[in-house]
Amino acid sequence: MDTNLSALAIGHEDITAARARLAGIAHRTPVLTSRHADELTGAQLFFKAESLQHTGAFKIRGAYNAIAQFTPQQRALGVVTFSSGNHGQAIARAAQLLGVKAVVAMPQDAPQIKLDATRGYGAEVVLFDRYEEDSATVLARLVAERGLTPVPPFDHPHVMAGQGTLAAELIEDAGPLDLLLTPVGGGGLMSGCATAAARWSPGCACWGVEPEAGNDAQQSLAAGRIVSIETPRTIADAAQSRHLGQHTFPVLRALVAGILTVSDAELVQTMRFFAARMKIVVEPTGCLAAAAVLHGKLEVRGRRVGIVLSGGNVDPARYAALLAGGA
Amino acid sequence: MDTNLSALAIGHEDITAARARLAGIAHRTPVLTSRHADELTGAQLFFKAESLQHTGAFKIRGAYNAIAQFTPQQRALGVVTFSSGNHGQAIARAAQLLGVKAVVAMPQDAPQIKLDATRGYGAEVVLFDRYEEDSATVLARLVAERGLTPVPPFDHPHVMAGQGTLAAELIEDAGPLDLLLTPVGGGGLMSGCATAAARWSPGCACWGVEPEAGNDAQQSLAAGRIVSIETPRTIADAAQSRHLGQHTFPVLRALVAGILTVSDAELVQTMRFFAARMKIVVEPTGCLAAAAVLHGKLEVRGRRVGIVLSGGNVDPARYAALLAGGA
Repeated sequence: MDTNLSALAIGHEDITAARARLAGIAHRTPVLTSRHADELTGAQLFFKAESLQHTGAFKIRGAYNAIAQFTPQQRALGVVTFSSGNHGQAIARAAQLLGVKAVVAMPQDAPQIKLDATRGYGAEVVLFDRYEEDSATVLARLVAERGLTPVPPFDHPHVMAGQGTLAAELIEDAGPLDLLLTPVGGGGLMSGCATAAARWSPGCACWGVEPEAGNDAQQSLAAGRIVSIETPRTIADAAQSRHLGQHTFPVLRALVAGILTVSDAELVQTMRFFAARMKIVVEPTGCLAAAAVLHGKLEVRGRRVGIVLSGGNVDPARYAALLAGGA
Repeated sequence: MDTNLSALAIGHEDITAARARLAGIAHRTPVLTSRHADELTGAQLFFKAESLQHTGAFKIRGAYNAIAQFTPQQRALGVVTFSSGNHGQAIARAAQLLGVKAVVAMPQDAPQIKLDATRGYGAEVVLFDRYEEDSATVLARLVAERGLTPVPPFDHPHVMAGQGTLAAELIEDAGPLDLLLTPVGGGGLMSGCATAAARWSPGCACWGVEPEAGNDAQQSLAAGRIVSIETPRTIADAAQSRHLGQHTFPVLRALVAGILTVSDAELVQTMRFFAARMKIVVEPTGCLAAAAVLHGKLEVRGRRVGIVLSGGNVDPARYAALLAGGA
């Protein structure tokens, strides 16, 4: 591990500052427990239910924390981002709360519920084909043409610090943890959470979980450099990022114990577990961390384990099909 | 309204005592809000999510409050009840926590998930046909043969007081309410909640909601006496009681503004709303109060409205079919 923490993009003081900005804006989401899940695993599990957050995912934390720090000129011109969905909704909603115009570039095949919700928050949506066109190119064009300020989905210190607030809350509510598992896409959530855990639950081992089909974070930590992959085909549509970020990778390298992977079938089983046993709707990506624990990817027996449920935005028809046994 | 409150089966001090017994046993379930639901209705809605309670429903509150007051001899012989499901699970779990033997009589057509869960909590299940046999007869037989102490699903002061604790929590968390809506089956939940509201949110109008097909509470309040109906055929399987109780009816008569009804189709639409918008699994009966508000059965504009989501125990295959548009 790299121990030069002062060189990292964020520190715990950035998370503390983000908490102050988010007070009254983001829900303090509940930490759920399940006797049944504890019995299955022999551990004490604490589920941070960001599926119950405004916009149905944790992303509002980072989005609001970033836009709230815009200069007056930046606020006047507006914000732009690209997003497979949850971040786009979060930018749209945060901008709406702050009275700022929002433009969101989204993949054409994003779930309809996410397109509708983003527009419902008053944002302009620009569609692109993510198997053909690079999202960064689309974003650069919108920045150049309109003078908008970009807030990327993960690779931005203000976004990372905002996401870290949920781990700070989790540790306050659950007490010190032995293990903390979070989904990994581009590493914004994971880097924020690991920074919070390092400060408020020292000794807690942080593990990232990504879909088997898109294990770029696992490859990157093994290689010691950012490894880029093709856009993975997985039902975990909010973790389809192709690579970690310049800001997030060093934090993961410094603070993360390792990266685990789970299959799409394990994600579906975990979605069903949440519906049947815990009475909550969790989207496939939101199931990553729990799937790793419920499918024995890590020894958790006797440990106090934080599990981040990152979101609940899944198209109702798709959700019904997955619960019923379809794919 | 009957204003002789001292003649009623419970008072607010019974709810306060129940809260002390339930501390550390029942979850203090979250009060959820939804910007979208508020915009649809023009009201401020506070959803008390008892679907996230231990055993997936509010019933653990009343069950534990009752068994905790057993004499040593009653504890030694055990508890018996009849239940369409949630109360049975709650009795089983509460008895397990208190080291008491539990016997639960359940209808043969109760959802499999409820049968399994009741047995999973260590209870003995006795099945009967609720279209043929009277649950009271089954219960009386079990009491006579085995010396068990009955704790009925609703018509018992200790059960009513236990259920009332959730309304006390809701009012503490949300602040004073203008309106409080709860599902009505036998009236145990409603009588406890109305008693709590009368004390801790004076001026709050309490409304019960029952399925159209089984509006015995509405008929009973209109007639001024307990009206008994045939077991209604409705998807709200936890509100299929045939009549209010001797203890619950007077409380409803004294403290309830009125009873509303909703159709099964409205319940299904509300289930879908909870999955798509609020990311929670709510069983049909648990949707009663919300369905009344979302389908305009009561003027709520500009009001602060408490809505009790009583449970989340729905068979996963059935749930998937209902979400997908089946019946």
